Amino acid sequence: MTSRRGGPVKAPLSRQAIVTEALRQLRRDGLPGMSLRKVATALKTGPASLYAYVDDLQELQALVLDRALGGVDTRGAKRGAWRSNLERLVASYLELLFASPGLAQLALSAIAVGPNALRITERFLGLLEEAGVDRRTAAWAVDLFLLYATAIAAEHGGREAKHDPANPKGAVARAVRGVSAGDYPHIHAAREEILSGGGGQRVAWAIDVLLKGILSSSPARGPQKRTARGR
Amino acid sequence: MTSRRGGPVKAPLSRQAIVTEALRQLRRDGLPGMSLRKVATALKTGPASLYAYVDDLQELQALVLDRALGGVDTRGAKRGAWRSNLERLVASYLELLFASPGLAQLALSAIAVGPNALRITERFLGLLEEAGVDRRTAAWAVDLFLLYATAIAAEHGGREAKHDPANPKGAVARAVRGVSAGDYPHIHAAREEILSGGGGQRVAWAIDVLLKGILSSSPARGPQKRTARGR
Repeated sequence: MTSRRGGPVKAPLSRQAIVTEALRQLRRDGLPGMSLRKVATALKTGPASLYAYVDDLQELQALVLDRALGGVDTRGAKRGAWRSNLERLVASYLELLFASPGLAQLALSAIAVGPNALRITERFLGLLEEAGVDRRTAAWAVDLFLLYATAIAAEHGGREAKHDPANPKGAVARAVRGVSAGDYPHIHAAREEILSGGGGQRVAWAIDVLLKGILSSSPARGPQKRTARGR
Repeated sequence: MTSRRGGPVKAPLSRQAIVTEALRQLRRDGLPGMSLRKVATALKTGPASLYAYVDDLQELQALVLDRALGGVDTRGAKRGAWRSNLERLVASYLELLFASPGLAQLALSAIAVGPNALRITERFLGLLEEAGVDRRTAAWAVDLFLLYATAIAAEHGGREAKHDPANPKGAVARAVRGVSAGDYPHIHAAREEILSGGGGQRVAWAIDVLLKGILSSSPARGPQKRTARGR
């Protein structure tokens, strides 16, 4: 598009255009690289004009997060069991955040309340209901799953290789292998276990731990019901 | 102290002085407010002089985190059961991070490997051994507990009241209460449960869920052993 004077037409300002530009900045420059001022500059307007569309940076962050969450696949396998569908849901969320470290950091402070956040929450609640989890446990469990996945992604995003605990030559491995049995008997005894579990193994383990904890915290699924079923 | 010329004596540069100043900046200005350049300025020297004591910002962050972790109480009650001592340990770590939002953010990206991090890990491993948890499960569980506590603290630290999900007039409450039963049946049904659980209730619940999951993930403590004990 060109204007009557021949120059490029300025795209009309809208909430959608603001969120699109902000998400682009976040993906390119990380969380500190996204600001109302920079969005305004990119859209060739002043920060004051943006305030007609968003209240403040926190609202913008929530909108950006929800937009990005559009990439989370909530469909699952048609005939899939609740468990594999829940694992797929968590994996899809993790994949999205791992692809964009700034997004993981953002997800830790902002809370999305738009259509995508609602779609993900709805799906989680549905799967946990299938699993027999009571309503209150399920409601809190959604938060716990998302917080865990967000934290794992934020943790990995913020780290260089030499500070990666999985790096056998990194600072963690050196410290753990360097303790004496006298000073730190438990660490010394568990040093190989502490340094084990790369390549997604720990994440799969943690999801399993969370699920076990959630299932046994749900009155409807507790030990009594299991006993009644003869397990 | 004054110098022979009568001015204040410049404190001798040391790793300890650098970490002390960096932690002061972190507590005062949050994570973005701490940098090698600012530490150098405060210590009246150039950034280049600091590199004789620390490799880079990530190493400084790890040292600062470990110094701060000195505030975590690992003693516990002398005759306390492992469970209450573990809850106290997590509570002490949480308290430290809640008091200083920048520290929670730092703990998510940096990994401390100094004496305080080792002391905390040693204590966790000891308590989980008392609980009958096998070595590998315990080693991974320490990470999961610390990640959960760090994430909860980082999440709260980054948020203004109006974006706090516990705020009944906040964006989350409005969104959750505003969904229709047709579009989001599970959210609609669980809306009160989703918004419940303030004042530490959810944290206590989550610690309990993690513990249940960890205990039932440990071969030595699994369902079979429970059955054998007649439970």
